[in-house]
Amino acid sequence: MRPEPSGPAADGGERTMESREAVDERVRALEEVCREVRRLAHALNQPLTAVVGNAELLALDVEDPELAEGIERIVREARRMSDLVQELAETARRSGSDGVPSG
Amino acid sequence: MRPEPSGPAADGGERTMESREAVDERVRALEEVCREVRRLAHALNQPLTAVVGNAELLALDVEDPELAEGIERIVREARRMSDLVQELAETARRSGSDGVPSG
Repeated sequence: MRPEPSGPAADGGERTMESREAVDERVRALEEVCREVRRLAHALNQPLTAVVGNAELLALDVEDPELAEGIERIVREARRMSDLVQELAETARRSGSDGVPSG
Repeated sequence: MRPEPSGPAADGGERTMESREAVDERVRALEEVCREVRRLAHALNQPLTAVVGNAELLALDVEDPELAEGIERIVREARRMSDLVQELAETARRSGSDGVPSG
């Protein structure tokens, strides 16, 4: 269990010193984190849809150009969030119960 | 270190049949997923702050009660997102480079 301060494979080398039990435990903990991430990514969709929907509705009604500009900005940023949440869901899916592809 | 096909620890048992190399590879892949989640959780903060900030500003200016209600709803939902993104960041941090606590 000696640390190797230098060497090219320091990261991997460290890991092979862990007991098999510890590594299995780590896999379980990481998988639990990923499950929680999938749940949260899913939960984000509901308020996000509400934000986009409300902003788009408001954009139709507003005549004041300054208000319109502010609402337009909200729509734009909410769509950016939408992209990120989708990316998040896809990333978390990569860790699915089928296991992470090792290639 | 023989696998035990039946018994109370069936889940762990399954995993012990994987080669050590495969498990290490899976840990690396899961850690990579968690890193990406941390990046995305961080990236979500910027548009989220913009949405909340813009909506709060608009709420100050709007007099029409229907518009005010719509903007209030945006603020409320955006704050819900804020809570979820924070939870996401904390969850992803649990998988940090210090490793996942195994207890």
